[in-house]
Amino acid sequence: MAIEIERKFLLNGDDWRSEVQQSSRIAQGYLSSDPERVVRVRLRDNQGFITIKGKTAGIERLEFEYEIPVADAEALLKLCPNTLDKTRHLIDFAGHIWEIDEFHGKNSPLIIAELELASSDANYIKPAWLGAEVSNDSRYFNSYLSEHSYSTW
Amino acid sequence: MAIEIERKFLLNGDDWRSEVQQSSRIAQGYLSSDPERVVRVRLRDNQGFITIKGKTAGIERLEFEYEIPVADAEALLKLCPNTLDKTRHLIDFAGHIWEIDEFHGKNSPLIIAELELASSDANYIKPAWLGAEVSNDSRYFNSYLSEHSYSTW
Repeated sequence: MAIEIERKFLLNGDDWRSEVQQSSRIAQGYLSSDPERVVRVRLRDNQGFITIKGKTAGIERLEFEYEIPVADAEALLKLCPNTLDKTRHLIDFAGHIWEIDEFHGKNSPLIIAELELASSDANYIKPAWLGAEVSNDSRYFNSYLSEHSYSTW
Repeated sequence: MAIEIERKFLLNGDDWRSEVQQSSRIAQGYLSSDPERVVRVRLRDNQGFITIKGKTAGIERLEFEYEIPVADAEALLKLCPNTLDKTRHLIDFAGHIWEIDEFHGKNSPLIIAELELASSDANYIKPAWLGAEVSNDSRYFNSYLSEHSYSTW
């Protein structure tokens, strides 16, 4: 169990690409996309996970994550009505790890930068390649994107 | 991952009570009660579980179950819109374990006997205290009961 505090931003140009240190492919789907009780299935490289996210209060969310066998994750993804496909790039910048999600398929060419923080008033330095903050815009929730592809906005 | 084949019956009288060998208290709720992808949280005596059940085809269901910390199960139950409270009694009869669920609260005085079988045509002997079969009546699904209490039928 953890409280998740996440800030989300759009990207400003392509300069971030030269700073990427690690990338992994992620397939995920939702057994529940109800914002009060999101249940996500994820296959990330060679690991499977099931994650439950509780009701959102501002940028804080209650989060529970459990690792599950890859074969289970593959079978559970088939139970999900919609799935997402993205590459997650990691950039270590000024003491924080930025996660840059580059969406594929129906959500291309959307790219979102995310930063997890220990508290909602924690300090951080904004990289030059960061665009507008969208933390409170629920259209950028992955659960929303799985049902309303970016290409249809 | 497992295929679950379950037969459900109502009870005929109270004679089953003298044959009970073990009982445990169960609290459970649903993060998703969509029949195609049920996500159940369960607290059973001193153990927590999260269980996903896939689409029903007749009496067979795809089922995935993971043990989780009790504190997580307690917090997850609070995310569920409705919860169920029941005592599960076990009876070993003619080589099969029968689970007798005695519901409390808003689903009292409903009692259901369940038998898990290895295949949909497996043989079993019916105890004398067994009433009508309700395997295909979706009102007796626990997920349905959590939203439509037996006392309101």
